[in-house]
Amino acid sequence: MKILVFGFSLRKGSFSRTIAEACEELAPKGTEIELYDIADIPIFNQDLEHSMPESVIRFKDAIRNSDALLIVMPEYNYSVPGYLKNAIDFASRPHQDNVFAGKPVGIISESTGLLGGARAQYHMRQSFVFLEVVDMKKPEAFITFASEKIKDGKVVDETTKEHISKYISALADFAKANANRNKVA
Amino acid sequence: MKILVFGFSLRKGSFSRTIAEACEELAPKGTEIELYDIADIPIFNQDLEHSMPESVIRFKDAIRNSDALLIVMPEYNYSVPGYLKNAIDFASRPHQDNVFAGKPVGIISESTGLLGGARAQYHMRQSFVFLEVVDMKKPEAFITFASEKIKDGKVVDETTKEHISKYISALADFAKANANRNKVA
Amino acid sequence: MKILVFGFSLRKGSFSRTIAEACEELAPKGTEIELYDIADIPIFNQDLEHSMPESVIRFKDAIRNSDALLIVMPEYNYSVPGYLKNAIDFASRPHQDNVFAGKPVGIISESTGLLGGARAQYHMRQSFVFLEVVDMKKPEAFITFASEKIKDGKVVDETTKEHISKYISALADFAKANANRNKVA
Amino acid sequence: MKILVFGFSLRKGSFSRTIAEACEELAPKGTEIELYDIADIPIFNQDLEHSMPESVIRFKDAIRNSDALLIVMPEYNYSVPGYLKNAIDFASRPHQDNVFAGKPVGIISESTGLLGGARAQYHMRQSFVFLEVVDMKKPEAFITFASEKIKDGKVVDETTKEHISKYISALADFAKANANRNKVA
Repeated sequence: MKILVFGFSLRKGSFSRTIAEACEELAPKGTEIELYDIADIPIFNQDLEHSMPESVIRFKDAIRNSDALLIVMPEYNYSVPGYLKNAIDFASRPHQDNVFAGKPVGIISESTGLLGGARAQYHMRQSFVFLEVVDMKKPEAFITFASEKIKDGKVVDETTKEHISKYISALADFAKANANRNKVA
Repeated sequence: MKILVFGFSLRKGSFSRTIAEACEELAPKGTEIELYDIADIPIFNQDLEHSMPESVIRFKDAIRNSDALLIVMPEYNYSVPGYLKNAIDFASRPHQDNVFAGKPVGIISESTGLLGGARAQYHMRQSFVFLEVVDMKKPEAFITFASEKIKDGKVVDETTKEHISKYISALADFAKANANRNKVA
Repeated sequence: MKILVFGFSLRKGSFSRTIAEACEELAPKGTEIELYDIADIPIFNQDLEHSMPESVIRFKDAIRNSDALLIVMPEYNYSVPGYLKNAIDFASRPHQDNVFAGKPVGIISESTGLLGGARAQYHMRQSFVFLEVVDMKKPEAFITFASEKIKDGKVVDETTKEHISKYISALADFAKANANRNKVA
Repeated sequence: MKILVFGFSLRKGSFSRTIAEACEELAPKGTEIELYDIADIPIFNQDLEHSMPESVIRFKDAIRNSDALLIVMPEYNYSVPGYLKNAIDFASRPHQDNVFAGKPVGIISESTGLLGGARAQYHMRQSFVFLEVVDMKKPEAFITFASEKIKDGKVVDETTKEHISKYISALADFAKANANRNKVA
C-alpha cells in the first residue's frame, strides 16, 4: 500500500510540509508514504501539453505508481492554493491521459485559523468530479490553529498526531476496498 | 435494478416532473423506475425526529428498498431547492439511521436558462460528502433551456431523450459495480 | 437601523435560536433587532406564488421594512438547512418582486462541530449572487462547538458574546454605508 | 474609467485571450481597457513575499491603478485555473497589502462545453469574500461552446459580441456607483 503525499506548500518549514513529514512517521505498518514535492512543476500552458516538461512526467508517473493519493494542503484566499491547482491541472493533461481517474484520494488541510482549510477542501472535491478520482468521504481531516499544534518543524499536539495516524489508516483501508474498481465508478 | 427518482418540483406539469416521467419511459430494459413525490414531507424540525412523521418513514423505506437513487431537480436561487433539501435533511435523520450511506446516486438537473441547474448540482455533491452516498461522477446531465425541450408535458427533444436514456443506463451499471461496497467506501 | 434576524432553527431551545436571542441583548445602542420566526412558511410550490400565503407576505414585508438582514443559522448536511432555503425561495418569488435585491446582509452560523457551519455560509453566498443582496464580506462569524458555548438556553461564553456584539456593530455600519446603493450594485 | 482585464490563458490564440482582445474593441466610449498578461508571474512561495518578484510588483501596480477589474478566464478541472489562482494568491500578499480590497470586479468565463466556465466563476466568488473585492452580481457572463463562437482568433458570433459590450458597460456603471466605497463595504 503506497500512498503518495503532495500538495504541501513550497516554503521550507511550512505547516503543511511539516504535516506531510509527520504522515511518514505516523503511518501505520504496511503503509508506505512517499512525499512528493511539486515545486518544480511550471505554470501550465496548453501549448506545452504535447511536449510535457520532465517534472510533470515524473509527477504523473508517481501518481500512476501509487495505490492512493493524500493531498496535504493549506488554504489560500478561501480556495485551493494556485500552485497546487496548477500542478493538478498540468498532471491531468492531456485529457486522454488523466492519471487521476479511478485513484483513491484523501485530503488533510490546515490553516492557522478557525476552519483548518475547510473551504479549500470542498473546492478540491468539485475538481474531483471532473478528475474522476474515488474520494474518501469520511473521515475528514482539518487541522485548525496550526501554529498552536506545530512547533519548531514538528507536530507536537498529541490529538493531532492521533488523527493523522487514524486518517492514514482509514485511507489505506478505503484504497484496499476500492483497488479493483474500474473507471466506471 | 430499482432506481428511485425524486427531487422533482411539486408543481403539476413542472419541467422536472416531466423529466422524471420521461425517465420511466426511457429507462433501459431490466431497470425499474419508481417516481417518488416528496410533496407530503413536512418542514423539518428536530423535535419531530424521534417520532418521525409517516411521510418521512415511507420516504426512508423507499430509499432503503432501492438499488440506486436518481435526483431530478430544478435549481432555485443558484442552489438546491429548499423543498428538496428539506426532504433530504429529514430523511437523513436521526444521525444513526442515515439511509443514504453507501447508496449509489445520480443527478439530472434542469433549468430554463443557460446552465441547466449546474450550480445546484455541485451544492448537492457537497451534501453527498456528509451523506456518504456513492456518487456517480461521470456522465453528468444538465438539461438547459428546458422550455424549448419540453412541450405540453412531454420531453420532445430527441437528443435530450437519448441523453436521459444513456444516463439511466450508466447509473444502472454504476449501481451494479458498487452494489457490494460497504460503507467504508 | 433595524436589523431583521431570521434563519434560526424551528426547534425550541435550539442553539441558533439562542444565538438569535443573544443578538437582541448584545446589539449596540441605536440598533433595533427584530427576531423573525419562519416556522409558519409552508413548503414552496410555484402554483402558490400567484396567491401568496399570508405567512410569506408577512415575511416579505418584514424584509422590506428592515435596513439590514442578519441570517443566524445551523448547518444541515454540509449546506443551508432546507427549511431556511425554502423560506428564502418562497420570499424571493415571484421574480419581479425580489425583496432581497439591494438589501445589506450578514450571516452568523453555528454548529456543535469544528467548522461552525462554514460550509453552509458559502452556499448561502452563492444564492446571494442571484438574490442580489449586498453581502458584508468581513468580518465573518462562525460559532464552533456551540454546545460548549451555550448552556441552558443562554450564550455563556464571553468571547462569543463579544464577537456577536462586534458583528452586529459592523453590520450596522455596513448597512449605513450601503443604504443608498441602488440595485445596480 | 480604466478596466484591467486579466486571467486569460497563457496559450497564444486561446479562446479566453481572444475574448479579452474583443473586450478592447467592444468597450463602450469612455472606457479604457488594459489587457494584462500574467504569464510572467512565478509560482507563489511565501518565502518570496518579502522580496516580491518584479512581475508581481507590476501586476499589483496595474491593479491599484485601475478603476475596475475584469477577469476573463477558462475553467480547468471544474474550478479556477491554477495559473490564475496562483497570480491572485501572489498579488494578494503580503496580507497587509491586499490590493484587491474595495475594487469593483466582474467576470467573463468561457468553455468549449455546455456551461461556459460557470463552475469556476462561483469558486472565484468564494475567493472574493476573502479578497474583499466589490463584486458585481448581475449581469453575469458565460460564453458557452466557445469553439463555435470564436473562429480564427476572432469572436464571430454577434450575440456574444453584444453581450460582451453590454457586460463592460454594466461593469463601468457598477464601478462608478461603487467608486467611493471604503473597505467597510
